[in-house]
Amino acid sequence: MHVIRIKVLKISIVSISFSPIFQYRFKKFRRWTYSSEKTLKGSGMTAVVNSYDGGGYYIDLNTTMNSSQIIINNLKNNLWIDRGTRAVFIDFTVYNANINLFCTVKLIAELPPTGGIVPSYVIRPVKLVRYNTIGDFVVLASEIIFCIFVIYYIVEEILEIKKLRCSYFKEFWNVLDIVVLLISICCIGFNIYCFLEVRKILDKVSTNPNVYVDFDFISYWQVVFNAATAIMVFFAWIKIFKYISFNKSMSQLSSTLGASAKDLGGFAIMFFIIFLAFAQLGYLMFGTQAVDFSTYSYSIFTLFRIILGDFNFQALQQANRVLGPIYFILYVFFVFFVLLNMFLAIINDTYSEVKAELADQPNDIDVAGYFKQVSKNRISVLHIRLLLCFNK
Amino acid sequence: MHVIRIKVLKISIVSISFSPIFQYRFKKFRRWTYSSEKTLKGSGMTAVVNSYDGGGYYIDLNTTMNSSQIIINNLKNNLWIDRGTRAVFIDFTVYNANINLFCTVKLIAELPPTGGIVPSYVIRPVKLVRYNTIGDFVVLASEIIFCIFVIYYIVEEILEIKKLRCSYFKEFWNVLDIVVLLISICCIGFNIYCFLEVRKILDKVSTNPNVYVDFDFISYWQVVFNAATAIMVFFAWIKIFKYISFNKSMSQLSSTLGASAKDLGGFAIMFFIIFLAFAQLGYLMFGTQAVDFSTYSYSIFTLFRIILGDFNFQALQQANRVLGPIYFILYVFFVFFVLLNMFLAIINDTYSEVKAELADQPNDIDVAGYFKQVSKNRISVLHIRLLLCFNK
Amino acid sequence: MHVIRIKVLKISIVSISFSPIFQYRFKKFRRWTYSSEKTLKGSGMTAVVNSYDGGGYYIDLNTTMNSSQIIINNLKNNLWIDRGTRAVFIDFTVYNANINLFCTVKLIAELPPTGGIVPSYVIRPVKLVRYNTIGDFVVLASEIIFCIFVIYYIVEEILEIKKLRCSYFKEFWNVLDIVVLLISICCIGFNIYCFLEVRKILDKVSTNPNVYVDFDFISYWQVVFNAATAIMVFFAWIKIFKYISFNKSMSQLSSTLGASAKDLGGFAIMFFIIFLAFAQLGYLMFGTQAVDFSTYSYSIFTLFRIILGDFNFQALQQANRVLGPIYFILYVFFVFFVLLNMFLAIINDTYSEVKAELADQPNDIDVAGYFKQVSKNRISVLHIRLLLCFNK
Amino acid sequence: MHVIRIKVLKISIVSISFSPIFQYRFKKFRRWTYSSEKTLKGSGMTAVVNSYDGGGYYIDLNTTMNSSQIIINNLKNNLWIDRGTRAVFIDFTVYNANINLFCTVKLIAELPPTGGIVPSYVIRPVKLVRYNTIGDFVVLASEIIFCIFVIYYIVEEILEIKKLRCSYFKEFWNVLDIVVLLISICCIGFNIYCFLEVRKILDKVSTNPNVYVDFDFISYWQVVFNAATAIMVFFAWIKIFKYISFNKSMSQLSSTLGASAKDLGGFAIMFFIIFLAFAQLGYLMFGTQAVDFSTYSYSIFTLFRIILGDFNFQALQQANRVLGPIYFILYVFFVFFVLLNMFLAIINDTYSEVKAELADQPNDIDVAGYFKQVSKNRISVLHIRLLLCFNK
Repeated sequence: MHVIRIKVLKISIVSISFSPIFQYRFKKFRRWTYSSEKTLKGSGMTAVVNSYDGGGYYIDLNTTMNSSQIIINNLKNNLWIDRGTRAVFIDFTVYNANINLFCTVKLIAELPPTGGIVPSYVIRPVKLVRYNTIGDFVVLASEIIFCIFVIYYIVEEILEIKKLRCSYFKEFWNVLDIVVLLISICCIGFNIYCFLEVRKILDKVSTNPNVYVDFDFISYWQVVFNAATAIMVFFAWIKIFKYISFNKSMSQLSSTLGASAKDLGGFAIMFFIIFLAFAQLGYLMFGTQAVDFSTYSYSIFTLFRIILGDFNFQALQQANRVLGPIYFILYVFFVFFVLLNMFLAIINDTYSEVKAELADQPNDIDVAGYFKQVSKNRISVLHIRLLLCFNK
Repeated sequence: MHVIRIKVLKISIVSISFSPIFQYRFKKFRRWTYSSEKTLKGSGMTAVVNSYDGGGYYIDLNTTMNSSQIIINNLKNNLWIDRGTRAVFIDFTVYNANINLFCTVKLIAELPPTGGIVPSYVIRPVKLVRYNTIGDFVVLASEIIFCIFVIYYIVEEILEIKKLRCSYFKEFWNVLDIVVLLISICCIGFNIYCFLEVRKILDKVSTNPNVYVDFDFISYWQVVFNAATAIMVFFAWIKIFKYISFNKSMSQLSSTLGASAKDLGGFAIMFFIIFLAFAQLGYLMFGTQAVDFSTYSYSIFTLFRIILGDFNFQALQQANRVLGPIYFILYVFFVFFVLLNMFLAIINDTYSEVKAELADQPNDIDVAGYFKQVSKNRISVLHIRLLLCFNK
Repeated sequence: MHVIRIKVLKISIVSISFSPIFQYRFKKFRRWTYSSEKTLKGSGMTAVVNSYDGGGYYIDLNTTMNSSQIIINNLKNNLWIDRGTRAVFIDFTVYNANINLFCTVKLIAELPPTGGIVPSYVIRPVKLVRYNTIGDFVVLASEIIFCIFVIYYIVEEILEIKKLRCSYFKEFWNVLDIVVLLISICCIGFNIYCFLEVRKILDKVSTNPNVYVDFDFISYWQVVFNAATAIMVFFAWIKIFKYISFNKSMSQLSSTLGASAKDLGGFAIMFFIIFLAFAQLGYLMFGTQAVDFSTYSYSIFTLFRIILGDFNFQALQQANRVLGPIYFILYVFFVFFVLLNMFLAIINDTYSEVKAELADQPNDIDVAGYFKQVSKNRISVLHIRLLLCFNK
Repeated sequence: MHVIRIKVLKISIVSISFSPIFQYRFKKFRRWTYSSEKTLKGSGMTAVVNSYDGGGYYIDLNTTMNSSQIIINNLKNNLWIDRGTRAVFIDFTVYNANINLFCTVKLIAELPPTGGIVPSYVIRPVKLVRYNTIGDFVVLASEIIFCIFVIYYIVEEILEIKKLRCSYFKEFWNVLDIVVLLISICCIGFNIYCFLEVRKILDKVSTNPNVYVDFDFISYWQVVFNAATAIMVFFAWIKIFKYISFNKSMSQLSSTLGASAKDLGGFAIMFFIIFLAFAQLGYLMFGTQAVDFSTYSYSIFTLFRIILGDFNFQALQQANRVLGPIYFILYVFFVFFVLLNMFLAIINDTYSEVKAELADQPNDIDVAGYFKQVSKNRISVLHIRLLLCFNK
């Protein structure tokens, strides 16, 4: 029977970074050694209270519980965490072989100058060993096909740019193509880099299991890579609109959005001026009392959420018994009752105009035929261009 | 005095299904016997983590607590649940005589490869013994009347189809009639089947109370039957519109909906493209951190709920401190502020047009008169048709 | 110093009403006596699980704790609450002299046939002794002035009815006047009755403090009286509109509402057909699993709340993993995206028409002048009428 | 190393204010001395249950824990808090040197005549010592620049008033300028006063640390000052609109809002009549049962929140099983479905008109050029005026 083996790569690090003004004491006493961000190859991070750079005083625990306990007791007795400590980071990585996922864990305990401990965490599950099972190789095949398509489109877009020059960048769809291609190239590059880097790290771990290996960096970039992929897919969805504007009813709608874009943009500016004015008012008046208004950005989010109906009226009322509700009612009246309706008025009016305009145009070109023609054109044009290109 | 007797049909089964790759060991050791889905006459089901087929290793507990305890202890000592176990199902059925309801209970404990136990349950209260009290016989009478009506309408619709042929299926209301009739027939059929099946099962139970009887199947179909009835009733409500379009004000509104249907449909496609793009973006970017975006379908539901104002902004913010709020604000701006208003613009514009068109039509045919005429027509036409039919 | 005296009128009753089928046993054994609703002068009530009539088996506790304890122990030993018990009611009234408020408390423990205990409560704080402090006498004075006004308006309306006959009832405002007057008369009548009744009850209590006095009836009617007053005040607010339609901008709006009333009503019917269809669908499909759909009326409320964005999506999803979300999305799409916008389209269109119509009418009669004129007319007309009336 | 010193200015006062009718006893017994609001230099405040004036019986605790304990025990033995007590206030101020913030804390325990204790608190973090670190001096510099600008604009506005006289006050933007300037002057004045006052208080504290120093007054005004600043900044944001109306698309929108202001205002009155009618109805019907309707103002807030989708339907339903849901549905239907759409209809119609009007006007004056011209004008005009002014 296959035993379910949970490989736990529980190599841990306890690093404490102090705010700079407290560093010199330690340097004097030389009890602990300060390691800069460069030495640790770590990266800074933003926790709840504050941002911290990658440097600090660190110690690695052992792989056995007993020896780790001794280290921790030693730290305790020597006042490792004292009044000057601002944050304690505990970093480790676990690996679940069943589902082939690494998980980098960063537990943070901040000790702000106002007292108390503010705990937080960053947990990033990432698939670092990517090509393992049969399913993974299907993914690999898809990725290779994706690369081929990317190369094909790069060639095509370059040819088009050569032909159209500056006028190429004037059309929205072309710019979108370029953006999608650029993100694709970045993603492919990162993927290859990541593959090599992970191998190196895993080699290190297997040769010397007692040394702490920092997966933080690689997992951070994996998350960035995921976000980049997400944005690329989003743009790919948007590109569908390029091919959808045939049907008269469809084009009517997309051209309404296009025609009203300018007015909507203009009004959006006006809207956001009043919106930001309210946000600042809320931030300055209730910021010290209500969490929802404690920063300017929180204030903005809170006002957005009020429009959608998700908010904490009690907190606002408790922040200021008189001004809180007045502020709330004024905001709802001006923004929800009046301004929000302007968006509608603009779209409504533009739609009527566009519909009237389009009323006498011919209808419903068949989509299938169009696609055939386009694909034919595309391929033949590419062929000719490639020929011309290589003939030069 | 009538003593309140709670008849508890507490016949229980503990069946454990393993993921296929762990089966061979058990077959080798022959300690437990694997029963396939067919042998158990069970049906597969979907729990929280995974879907399971109906097969597995099962054992039936006894009707007395002591002997059941012995069985359970035996299972414990022989490592019935081990590392290879993926799910444990506990099935039993209770019967409350006071309110004449059976309740099939399925308690599920899933043991996913990532560790931990994920409990879930399926509780289905069903009325299996349907005709017991006087009230039930009133229901029976109604059901018989319903059957008669169904037969009447089947005859009528068949006659109409014969007369109109293909053109019959072109009208929406006729198709709706057919659908309602088909569901009705299925429901009647199921009801009869269920009545017979329940009698058979109850006979089995009363002859041998020590054997586990599976109510799972019958209760599952009872739930499906309820859903079918619900949908049928829904369509019956919709059919009211067929008779409501006389009043000018009414017809004005329904014809507005009709006229705007094409544009609304066209825009709905555009809307859902952007909507799905946002859903995918959210799924890929926040899926590993926020539960609301953990699957693609969850992501879609979450975005729907944002429009209505029911969502968890904190979770989104915690998932990604920077991209979370930006994503949220962009989504609200484009979808809630702009796109949602397009629906309104379309309806608004169509309404104006329809109202202008209808302004010079004659008004308000009296509904009562219409109904009289319709019913007269209906009956006389049916009479004639039946005569013709039987004359053939 | 004035000692703060908390007069607690803690005269209590424990009455148990059994469902009728269990009564005969008790009558046979004659251990407890059944008291009908008439004997107890109580009124029926609706708790969580069921409705109960006022009858039952009751026992009064004593004013001292010890003797009450003996009574309760006695009840326990004699199985006062047994399998046949469906509900236990504990009634008592407390009085807080500091704020001069009576509070009738009814604690209910229901024992449904399905088992378990469902607790609920009815707490009604009422001001029974109304004229005590100086502030109260100001209220009395206001009430007398109110009565005078009511008499004045009764006379006026009667005169108007005499003059205009049937055509009087055709105008909305006149009907509203009549309704307000009728409610006023009821309230005045009830107030006098209540004043007398309370005096009688308090006399009873002071002469014999050991007897349970039922404040339930009087407090119930006090609540009804409050509701009646509330509705009267609501109509009084609505009457403001009668005097507000001078300003052109105002009349423009009220006439828009008037003109669109018919279309809005027509559409409201259509809207509610679909709405009720969805409600029934939800009730039949999810009623056994989700509390929000457990009755037809709950289902209606839930769908209303979905429109406003206050609902429990998780419950719907848990009720049915597939049909739940589909139902939700279909509902939101058809009702929130499409149908709700029809209301807007109707109002929008009517507003444009009304505005165009009113564009060439004279503007802004001064309100002050109007009021002068009206009040002069009103008084002089009344004078003349009264003269005529008495001259007859 | 800099030791983190938490300077706790824990000088405390326990003042008990009795409702007036209970005062004479204490005066008779002379055990405690009543101090009026004037003697204590305190200010009244509003807690949860009631408002209290600044007077009362107070005692100061000591700086050491033991002696404070003796004082408290003494108070306990002498029945400091008795039946007549209505509220107990505990006031103290803490200072966190790390972040240079004072925090005045007021803990309130109210003992209402209905019994029980209602705790509440007022915590006001204020920065009293304003100019300490380098960052603070940057703030100081900004404040000085602000003062110079204020003086500049005062001169300019006075010159303009002199020139334009009454017609100056007719334009909205001028009035806004005046308001902003007035608030600015108040804020500057308060800031100077506060700076001096704080120095005086801190001197007092440092000379005699055993005396209770009341930061309540200064912290209260600091909060008022913050609110004033907030409102000023809000108006400053609004002023942006003055300069934004060049772009045709922008002016179109702002003139729509301007043109519809009258109609919107008129309808807002109508809307609020019905709204207030519903609020009163809710308050009178559900006020005794549901917290959300317990006062008239709460009722208003609750109805506002229903529109936005944030409310507690269960509470309403529990308050009255029948009238609650009916009230809710009627409110949603009339206010959310019908009245709210009128706002939209007004804006929509006005927008169409304004757009049609503006269609033949010249477009898009360049903003940069305008600003140049304006600033040139402004400066040169001011120069000339100042010359003229001093020449007089």
